[in-house]
Amino acid sequence: MDALPLVDVTANAACCSPLARTPLAAEDAERLAGMFKAVADPARLRLLSLIASHDGGEACVCDLTEPLALSQPTVSHHLKTLTGAGLITREQRGRWAYYAVVPAALDALGGVLTTRHRAADASCC
Amino acid sequence: MDALPLVDVTANAACCSPLARTPLAAEDAERLAGMFKAVADPARLRLLSLIASHDGGEACVCDLTEPLALSQPTVSHHLKTLTGAGLITREQRGRWAYYAVVPAALDALGGVLTTRHRAADASCC
Repeated sequence: MDALPLVDVTANAACCSPLARTPLAAEDAERLAGMFKAVADPARLRLLSLIASHDGGEACVCDLTEPLALSQPTVSHHLKTLTGAGLITREQRGRWAYYAVVPAALDALGGVLTTRHRAADASCC
Repeated sequence: MDALPLVDVTANAACCSPLARTPLAAEDAERLAGMFKAVADPARLRLLSLIASHDGGEACVCDLTEPLALSQPTVSHHLKTLTGAGLITREQRGRWAYYAVVPAALDALGGVLTTRHRAADASCC
């Protein structure tokens, strides 16, 4: 991982306090909006999906440029945004960087919007 | 409702095909990015939360301006964006407009990011 997550949404109370439970505080709204901005882009959503659906939820950067038909610097920029938001991690192995999704971060962000929650979700908070 | 949802995410296959299942198609990524853009703003997240946490998941516009300390036109603009994305509905009753969340749309959008899904979720798709 080459950057600390800007926001640790997995440690955020919002993970178990979806929008419907209590009005969102201003600082939480700022943090969460930053996370949603990271996924509010078609290329980044496709990158996330390419990584997540790859074997083991991990993909080499060398497999991510061609499917999107974007330049390598553009793909790198988007990957950096996703890494900075804590949604993926980056690991350098020899010549190539490998990216893996952070399921807990994706689940926590998705859970902010979800109105129906399992009564007993041990993995949450 | 004064506007048709721009994207009917509840009818979208992505609702039950989270990112990890299969690489996201370009057109689905465009649609979903538009939905995430609607929530990728602190004021809109707070408005969503104020409406969702209000009695019955519905709130009068007259109750939404003061908590955010924003001007009425700014609040109206954000509410229009959320309505256009199909995340809330608007109903005029006499002098005031009332806004209600669309739980199915929020659940579907949250579900796109969620990696853990209930085995049998009858309300989904």
